[in-house]
Amino acid sequence: MRSVEHLQELFLKYLQKELFDQSPIELYEPINYILQLGGKRLRPVLLLMGANLFSEEVNHALPAALAIEIFHNFSLVHDDIMDEAPLRRGKPTVHIKYGQNAGILSGDAMLILTYQYLNQLKNPEQLPSILRIFNQLAIEVCEGQQYDMNFETQESVEIVAYLRMIELKTSVLIAGGLKIGALIGGAGEEDANELYEFGRHIGIAFQLQDDILDTFGDPEKFGKKVGGDIAQNKKTILLLKSMEQATGQDRIDLLTALSTTADPIQKIKKVTYIYNKLKVQEQATELMEDYLRKAFIHLDRVNVPESRKTLLRNLANELMRREI
Amino acid sequence: MRSVEHLQELFLKYLQKELFDQSPIELYEPINYILQLGGKRLRPVLLLMGANLFSEEVNHALPAALAIEIFHNFSLVHDDIMDEAPLRRGKPTVHIKYGQNAGILSGDAMLILTYQYLNQLKNPEQLPSILRIFNQLAIEVCEGQQYDMNFETQESVEIVAYLRMIELKTSVLIAGGLKIGALIGGAGEEDANELYEFGRHIGIAFQLQDDILDTFGDPEKFGKKVGGDIAQNKKTILLLKSMEQATGQDRIDLLTALSTTADPIQKIKKVTYIYNKLKVQEQATELMEDYLRKAFIHLDRVNVPESRKTLLRNLANELMRREI
Repeated sequence: MRSVEHLQELFLKYLQKELFDQSPIELYEPINYILQLGGKRLRPVLLLMGANLFSEEVNHALPAALAIEIFHNFSLVHDDIMDEAPLRRGKPTVHIKYGQNAGILSGDAMLILTYQYLNQLKNPEQLPSILRIFNQLAIEVCEGQQYDMNFETQESVEIVAYLRMIELKTSVLIAGGLKIGALIGGAGEEDANELYEFGRHIGIAFQLQDDILDTFGDPEKFGKKVGGDIAQNKKTILLLKSMEQATGQDRIDLLTALSTTADPIQKIKKVTYIYNKLKVQEQATELMEDYLRKAFIHLDRVNVPESRKTLLRNLANELMRREI
Repeated sequence: MRSVEHLQELFLKYLQKELFDQSPIELYEPINYILQLGGKRLRPVLLLMGANLFSEEVNHALPAALAIEIFHNFSLVHDDIMDEAPLRRGKPTVHIKYGQNAGILSGDAMLILTYQYLNQLKNPEQLPSILRIFNQLAIEVCEGQQYDMNFETQESVEIVAYLRMIELKTSVLIAGGLKIGALIGGAGEEDANELYEFGRHIGIAFQLQDDILDTFGDPEKFGKKVGGDIAQNKKTILLLKSMEQATGQDRIDLLTALSTTADPIQKIKKVTYIYNKLKVQEQATELMEDYLRKAFIHLDRVNVPESRKTLLRNLANELMRREI
């Protein structure tokens, strides 16, 4: 069993070795740029941990881990264009730094490179099934992004639709990566599916926590300014629950606050007051903990010695404490 | 052996059956739109012909043929955004009709769908090698598009670099499609490679012919207005050869004509005059015919009865006469 730090380091070394020096440089430089912006490398590390549950030969899973990381970064590059985001991890986004066309085309190339790395399996007989899993999650990520964009202009969004959206946009990549890692490590179909469900539930819990922390987090620990989602009218679990439950004067106050664009500090204060009054933080936390509980039930069912699961269990718990 | 029309019909029936009715509609409708805009379906038909050279079971190659067509249309959708093109086959481009974000995201989904169809091989053992061929051509198409964009702002472009660009942007897709079709039909590696080279040379010849016809074609037969490339200062084989060869007053006249934006009719007339004086049409035609000759040498080497090659030979000749 490898530690998280060991797997991170293993992955970063491999990534460094694989950076692209081909021509034309205008196509490949933005790819190297975004891949080196940092981040926790959570998705590839989870894939490696999925493999490591079943095998000591985690090196065999490195190309697939890089595939997942390249795919994740591809989706960031294109989403940032669609969302007109100027910054990513505190640095200029690809389309700001290199232009929109470079963002589109380098993103496309990254999606193709993803498949080049998926095609480097130690056991090529696994390719049809691993490609099936990957294609499924990849198209779901696109569907999730489309739902997310739809929700922006939709007046009301059902909570069940919101949960499905974050499942598609965020958690299937974590889930599918874990499953692919498990299969590369030699897992049977059932264990791989349990791990997928673990990842799917963890991913949703993680996104719900993100929503909660954006309003109620300690800005020092969370690393973002508190209230950004409220200021932008972002449809989070907190806002959707409030919209569902607010009646009378609360509803009027909430709608009034949402419709103001001036004075974001007052807006954040007012909306947070209603969140507190309706106790939506508690409700969202309960929902999140429910997903977390279910996630661990699936991990429990994975048929490997308990000691091998410790690392994954700890990482999930740490993630939920947002300490890494 | 099937006729071109039969293969076209077979493909169109399959495409119709496979159109996407999933949610969210905002993601899938633009995909159905571009896939139904028509066109000759040249690439999938060539893939089917590649299979049909070696096997009567062309149906087995239909998913791969659709993959190639979806990929081709993906590249059109994203290129049209990058080139800010308003029309495609006389209809609004996807980003004009559905918005830029829909163009980006639907294009991404199409690239993923391409791989879903590639993963429907009758013989899944072929997947690693077919995926390798496809990934290679796909990344080359991106590289070709990048070079094409680079050339727009470059003052001078070497003819050898131009030929490489059109090879990447246009002909590797035709070549790779033929090779994948051949392999699905049961071809050996050598025959499949000869067919790749046939397609690669045909593709370059086809693009050179496109350049020639844009200035010297019969507008009725060619279906486009004559001189569009000149009006837009597009770096074609004709312009590059002229830039290479024009001296003295011709060079001054050429540069002057290129720098004017007013009165495109006069501009087309002046540049065409210099093309005629330098005989670049004849030179480009000679180059094109050289590629065509080489293409057929590769087809000759494919180890199947001559009668099976007739269809492909006729199609290539017809294409070069631009009658289909």
